[in-house]
Amino acid sequence: MSTDKITFLMNWHATPYHAPVYLAQKQGYFANEGISVALLEPNDPSDVTEIIGSGRVDMGFKAMIHTLAAKARGFPVTSIGSLLDEPFTGVVYLTSSGITTDFRTLRGKRIGYVGEFGKIQIDELTRHYGMTPADYTAVRCGMNVSKAIISGEIDAGIGLENVQMVELEEWLVSQHRPRSDVKMLRIDELAELGCCCFCSILYIGNDAFIKANPDKVAKFMKAVKRATEDVLTDPLGMFERYIDIKPQMASAVNRKIFERSFAYFSRDLKNVPRDWNKVTAYGKRLGVLPEGYEPNYTNEFLQGWDLAKDSADPIGDQKRMAALQELVKEQGGFRRIDDGEKVGVVGVAA
Amino acid sequence: MSTDKITFLMNWHATPYHAPVYLAQKQGYFANEGISVALLEPNDPSDVTEIIGSGRVDMGFKAMIHTLAAKARGFPVTSIGSLLDEPFTGVVYLTSSGITTDFRTLRGKRIGYVGEFGKIQIDELTRHYGMTPADYTAVRCGMNVSKAIISGEIDAGIGLENVQMVELEEWLVSQHRPRSDVKMLRIDELAELGCCCFCSILYIGNDAFIKANPDKVAKFMKAVKRATEDVLTDPLGMFERYIDIKPQMASAVNRKIFERSFAYFSRDLKNVPRDWNKVTAYGKRLGVLPEGYEPNYTNEFLQGWDLAKDSADPIGDQKRMAALQELVKEQGGFRRIDDGEKVGVVGVAA
Repeated sequence: MSTDKITFLMNWHATPYHAPVYLAQKQGYFANEGISVALLEPNDPSDVTEIIGSGRVDMGFKAMIHTLAAKARGFPVTSIGSLLDEPFTGVVYLTSSGITTDFRTLRGKRIGYVGEFGKIQIDELTRHYGMTPADYTAVRCGMNVSKAIISGEIDAGIGLENVQMVELEEWLVSQHRPRSDVKMLRIDELAELGCCCFCSILYIGNDAFIKANPDKVAKFMKAVKRATEDVLTDPLGMFERYIDIKPQMASAVNRKIFERSFAYFSRDLKNVPRDWNKVTAYGKRLGVLPEGYEPNYTNEFLQGWDLAKDSADPIGDQKRMAALQELVKEQGGFRRIDDGEKVGVVGVAA
Repeated sequence: MSTDKITFLMNWHATPYHAPVYLAQKQGYFANEGISVALLEPNDPSDVTEIIGSGRVDMGFKAMIHTLAAKARGFPVTSIGSLLDEPFTGVVYLTSSGITTDFRTLRGKRIGYVGEFGKIQIDELTRHYGMTPADYTAVRCGMNVSKAIISGEIDAGIGLENVQMVELEEWLVSQHRPRSDVKMLRIDELAELGCCCFCSILYIGNDAFIKANPDKVAKFMKAVKRATEDVLTDPLGMFERYIDIKPQMASAVNRKIFERSFAYFSRDLKNVPRDWNKVTAYGKRLGVLPEGYEPNYTNEFLQGWDLAKDSADPIGDQKRMAALQELVKEQGGFRRIDDGEKVGVVGVAA
């Protein structure tokens, strides 16, 4: 017997920034739309595009660079919306490692990466800094980059500002060391990309599934849009609900990760064409996309709400975001750069 | 493009007793057999048989009663081996709830269950004790039965001796209360089944997948058999490896769950015909299997090692197991009833 359940595979174990999909399930928003969804989690994030691209699973989350590369490699997927816009991503290190803001201090170091693309990105960067891939040791870490830095297995590793940096900051606090001992060499800055959009986390779908089920896809996106609005309006209340679903979210570090992810949530779930063009060009430069490759995204399933105009000042936005995240690191709370002229604060955890 | 990866879906979030499959992956045993496996975890355990039975995922773990019912409902799956033999399962409660060894003390109580079958089992039991399903309040809890007991949302809930009871025991210790304040009304005893095999955790596969890929299935089972042997020979060392894969296993409660699961691991992975016959009869009694239903298991993929003879004294084994688990609860360590004339101790955690 076939099933009408939509299968949806996370890009990672359940994580604070996944809140909208788990809440869409828990709040009954999928059911309200008349769809049934099974949420699945991977043991290895590197399996995700292959499993979705081959049609074994219908939909899921994945970063932009992986989404582009998947289709180029014969695993046809398309992004149908954005979960997180441009989370800062880079080489995360402790100051005690001897690494500095100078990329060349990575020489001789052991650098952890998740699956494959982090290594491709670092390898490509070595050329711009008079080095070769043989100048550092790459260590595949899967989902355990922070753990490997803490254990000393690696000197630095690729991670997100709102996840791995937070894990390391909270570990530092437990060691009576300042949070400022963890730093990031941002890949977008090193590679002069002008955005951290290669790591934007997207809603993706298998191409054949999308073509055969446009209504289901639109209903899915409507349900997660509703849950996203809930999160943006009442982050503390919604995080408590998320803890009901996933008790491990109650940890101090997961609460911090949720705060630090808050500013990155896409409000309208829009795929940003400018970002896609930049990352497509970057993918060609990395050698993972052929010349002439057309980016694989669509906004056609975002129906029933307005999509924001493209920002007139994306570089300025990025600077504001960096300052905002420093503020959240210091003071906590739920803040976004799109909340008005000045930084808006929705609520600050006691 | 299709994928040759075998997809394998857990019955639960990653849990100490899943060690053999994660270790088979980490130790390279799947790769040694020439197969590639993607391990997946569900958000809702109730999705598992539908997703495997409909062929969306190839293989997975599920309890015997669910495996039987899945095929009867049109989601064709077959058990190809056993992970855990007869873990004690029942209504778990704190003595402070007012519940006693008398089933009738459940009257008026709120009883949590995972998905569906726990409720069917309790409903059926009410008839044997002069009650009706209306005499208690059923509360669906998914994977959060222990949490709901702790929060007071429910008075008792269905769980395993080696998982939910341990979670509650360790919570009691944190409250300066004795571990003995958590008790279980064993369903096998209440229902006079003569075994706790309805909850034996099995390796299952989609029927069409098994038919089309007998070699892959046999290789998969060979790899997990090898990892099972590692676990039984060196439980402490293998658990440390499991922690490398899943850092959350390092918690005190997960270490205890692993100790308490150790005795239940099937050494030869055999489906035990006597158990299947008993549970098939029980499924008919529960009304979830039609008359004439034939149990859906096979041992044909367990190739290259000897399968143990059926125990001559299964009731005696169960008594020995109950005594053994009490000992492990008090003293810790890794003990099994098949280690010789007297209780064998592989190693005791410091």
